[in-house]
Amino acid sequence: MNEFELIRRYFTRPARRARLGVGDDCALIDAHGTLAISTDALIEGRHFLSEVDPEALGHKALAVNLSDLAAMGAEPLACTLALALPAPRAQDSGWMQAFSHGFNTLAERYDCELMGGDTTASPLIMISVTIIGQVPPEQALRRSRAQVGDDIYVSGYLGDAAMALAWLQAGKAPPAALRQRLERPEPRVALGMGLRRIAHAAIDLSDGLSGDLQHILTASAQSGTSPLGASIDLEQLPTSPEFEQAASGLTPEQKWHYQLAGGDDYELCFTAPVSKREPIAQAAAQAGVEVRRIGHVERDSGLRWLKQGQPVTLKLQSFDHFIDTSLKHTAA
Amino acid sequence: MNEFELIRRYFTRPARRARLGVGDDCALIDAHGTLAISTDALIEGRHFLSEVDPEALGHKALAVNLSDLAAMGAEPLACTLALALPAPRAQDSGWMQAFSHGFNTLAERYDCELMGGDTTASPLIMISVTIIGQVPPEQALRRSRAQVGDDIYVSGYLGDAAMALAWLQAGKAPPAALRQRLERPEPRVALGMGLRRIAHAAIDLSDGLSGDLQHILTASAQSGTSPLGASIDLEQLPTSPEFEQAASGLTPEQKWHYQLAGGDDYELCFTAPVSKREPIAQAAAQAGVEVRRIGHVERDSGLRWLKQGQPVTLKLQSFDHFIDTSLKHTAA
Repeated sequence: MNEFELIRRYFTRPARRARLGVGDDCALIDAHGTLAISTDALIEGRHFLSEVDPEALGHKALAVNLSDLAAMGAEPLACTLALALPAPRAQDSGWMQAFSHGFNTLAERYDCELMGGDTTASPLIMISVTIIGQVPPEQALRRSRAQVGDDIYVSGYLGDAAMALAWLQAGKAPPAALRQRLERPEPRVALGMGLRRIAHAAIDLSDGLSGDLQHILTASAQSGTSPLGASIDLEQLPTSPEFEQAASGLTPEQKWHYQLAGGDDYELCFTAPVSKREPIAQAAAQAGVEVRRIGHVERDSGLRWLKQGQPVTLKLQSFDHFIDTSLKHTAA
Repeated sequence: MNEFELIRRYFTRPARRARLGVGDDCALIDAHGTLAISTDALIEGRHFLSEVDPEALGHKALAVNLSDLAAMGAEPLACTLALALPAPRAQDSGWMQAFSHGFNTLAERYDCELMGGDTTASPLIMISVTIIGQVPPEQALRRSRAQVGDDIYVSGYLGDAAMALAWLQAGKAPPAALRQRLERPEPRVALGMGLRRIAHAAIDLSDGLSGDLQHILTASAQSGTSPLGASIDLEQLPTSPEFEQAASGLTPEQKWHYQLAGGDDYELCFTAPVSKREPIAQAAAQAGVEVRRIGHVERDSGLRWLKQGQPVTLKLQSFDHFIDTSLKHTAA
């Protein structure tokens, strides 16, 4: 099977919204208004292990990109996939079918049409996905629009994926619910779109709340001034029962580390004025996603962790690709 | 330097057409009408050698994608870059500056704004670029619209890049003009746009004329019928003086192999009705690109090579990533 047959067999679907699907020099699709564009790469041994479940890998490769659209309040339109992989994988129809099934199923669920594909031989698996969405420009949820006094929210639970990864790295099978959260994150697309005109700023949580929230606070500073700051109530961090159980032998500090610096949550963190608490509750209910108010934005730079109103000192480090040499996170 | 600083330092430019540049979850840009989308990946050791000139690599990574837009008659709008590379490269500011300069310079020349970036550590260099252009949908140059009787044209010269690569692989320094054609292909964007409403079908030449023209002939067959065919006049293949000189010791068959199956030309091959010869000459002159009429489309499947009207038998094989294990082509 050559590269053209690979694309035709595994990734060419009947065009739905596209005028012209994969197979020409370019694919063609109609768009209206403002495009939201993002790109992410996943590298074998870095973002996932070689023995990863290929169906989960296909799902996650697209899910992390859809999560970027969600954080912008954008509606999915189209995506592209560059897939480099060793020839034996390309010839392994079970692997290819599972990978493409994971990818294509999620793409169809979000009506996000695959508009460009490139497959090439490579010593290790590398996946790069670019995603294109649409959003009315004045309604896009930018990182830079947080204001002093805003409430800070997160969706879903924090720490589940990081806990599952820790179990895997320790050679233990994680509880199914946690593993699911690591392998098949559910992008919060409906919630992001529902927060248009309500939230001030949003980001998706890929590297851990503490680092990702800091991006909002830095981007939202007035030009030439210090970053904004925040107080976070540690007792409000949304925690799943499965996480509680899996973390039963840990100290509070260890649990908070998973929840604040573990990464791979793919939940939304957003800020909104106090006056919007009711519309936010409605948007969350409509999207079928729990959201939790965990703190608020302050003028003074820095993240302040509170427990029963008292400051708690935490040493947290977010992941950085060129500093940390351990595996970042994995899809299985 | 971490991944965020890398993107900020080397790839974040003042937004020109974009509403919001790199640095948020997504970038934002306005679009109108139909998008043309394509993606290409370049892998170290597969598409280029490790000791590649980084400035040429940056240029070529974008040029091959712009060439896909050109083949569609589309106007560049935006691009994304996923760059995976070993940490020592990321820390090498000379390498990074040269690579980003090659990429950014070409992007600015074609007003093709970088709208998404991802950098990540990896054992080897992998570059994936997605490009987005715009084209009035009914004017897009599809592969599938060739008709029996159409003239077949190519732009520029054929075989220069393949000849330069052969010299490099033999350990010899190729003539500067040929090396330039290998390292810094010039995408035929203006020509592609000029061929709207004139040409029937087009493709860009990445794997060699014989294989790429076959894609047009296969795609243009009526549903359920055999591919169309073509006759090509070997004496009309456009040949640069530098190629002639570099190939002076070769047989005609060897020269034709470089020109028909060598790959990496990044010229346009297109078909048009006989009635359009004058408008095509005008479009080519306006784009500042030579085009040559080399044959015509026929009903009978297969490629027929002619010399002085007599058939010539050639054994040609186009490159396939999962069959050929040698280096495909290189940017230096």
